Amino acid sequence: MTSGVHPLRVVLVAPRNPLNIGAAARAMSNFGCTELRLVNPYEVAFREARSAVKAHKVLEKAEEFPTLGEAVADCGLVVGTTSIGHRALEHPLRRLEYGGRLIARKLVSTPVALLFGSEKFGLSNDDMSHCHWLMRIPTREEHGSMNLGQAVAVCLYEIVRNPAAAKPEPDSRRAARAGDLERITGLLGEILEHSGYVHERVEGSTELKLRRLVRRMKLNAHDAEVWLGMLRQIRWKLLS
Amino acid sequence: MTSGVHPLRVVLVAPRNPLNIGAAARAMSNFGCTELRLVNPYEVAFREARSAVKAHKVLEKAEEFPTLGEAVADCGLVVGTTSIGHRALEHPLRRLEYGGRLIARKLVSTPVALLFGSEKFGLSNDDMSHCHWLMRIPTREEHGSMNLGQAVAVCLYEIVRNPAAAKPEPDSRRAARAGDLERITGLLGEILEHSGYVHERVEGSTELKLRRLVRRMKLNAHDAEVWLGMLRQIRWKLLS
Repeated sequence: MTSGVHPLRVVLVAPRNPLNIGAAARAMSNFGCTELRLVNPYEVAFREARSAVKAHKVLEKAEEFPTLGEAVADCGLVVGTTSIGHRALEHPLRRLEYGGRLIARKLVSTPVALLFGSEKFGLSNDDMSHCHWLMRIPTREEHGSMNLGQAVAVCLYEIVRNPAAAKPEPDSRRAARAGDLERITGLLGEILEHSGYVHERVEGSTELKLRRLVRRMKLNAHDAEVWLGMLRQIRWKLLS
Repeated sequence: MTSGVHPLRVVLVAPRNPLNIGAAARAMSNFGCTELRLVNPYEVAFREARSAVKAHKVLEKAEEFPTLGEAVADCGLVVGTTSIGHRALEHPLRRLEYGGRLIARKLVSTPVALLFGSEKFGLSNDDMSHCHWLMRIPTREEHGSMNLGQAVAVCLYEIVRNPAAAKPEPDSRRAARAGDLERITGLLGEILEHSGYVHERVEGSTELKLRRLVRRMKLNAHDAEVWLGMLRQIRWKLLS
């Protein structure tokens, strides 16, 4: 995981569906997170995890624990995920946007456990009492409960998310020079005049409109050359 | 979708697996996005979409199109998703952190189409040529390709994500008063003295250590009262 020096431990509590375990493992592999722990999985369902394309390394390393307490014993922060519902929570509840930042920061100094409950019931009150705080994904109220594999993917994305990347990347393509844009404007004007689209080439307002139209194309240098080539050919055909 | 006044249209191009279509629909329902479009789905697989808990509304409304051009015709911005791989891309490529912001902003003025390719091949060059730009989820290079339903979930999360929510939420619990912390410190000192843990109660350094220890507990008012009650009971038992 790029955001910390300690591992994030994804802990699935009593997962029932091997497809979901596989999907969780795949999302972990996508985001560079390798430590999967299972508490009391149903009938060792995780050995059957099938949808786990390229995630076999995560699944091979996965550890099984009889109790949640043992699964999180070596972690300095334990965070439970919840879709809340109508249960009154005894814990501080943080939205993923903020909780994800806290977890990423905490990973600098300690391993962190991120808990996901069973598909049907989520985390129990007993499970939650092992947590320092709870975290929720900002889903809409009428349909808050996410698929397990998708919930894992979204949480891991937020944790590896790079806030600095939310800014424009420098455009590697060189912008077209104003001289080329002016040549395009001129060629287009000539072509439209010869085509009968513009009747009075000399009319200034048309020229200004064309000039602005061409600037709004935001052409890069390469595309400007392509346009010049196309327009020259069209002009040649019209005048020949 | 909370972030815009126009709809985001999730367009699945040639999806093969009904489970994935169902998972995409479920993620859409979770994040309040209702317009699903399918281009040339395999054998109308989307009617079988099974894992779509509570997503039947999205699936019922889903529209099928024979070509991508028709599926995106009414959109003012068309964005393709890709895991890049080793293909040289002819398009501007943006990371999800930035691309998601651009899409959320664009939804204020126009419908936007977000394209996902087939599970096996992703978007073709022909599909991509319909796009204004491409977007990638920041997965690790060695395993970039995400499960379709998970990719949809992560992209929608970033688009509805509220940057303002990435800040601490005000703590609703009142902090313990210093007076209560001092009473706890005093009681703990007495108990430790009676228990033989501290031999010389008068020794200032022990008292200072205890005082700091108690402050680091960051107690809220309610928990401070609970601690006072427990410590008083222990002292009573020790002295009786």
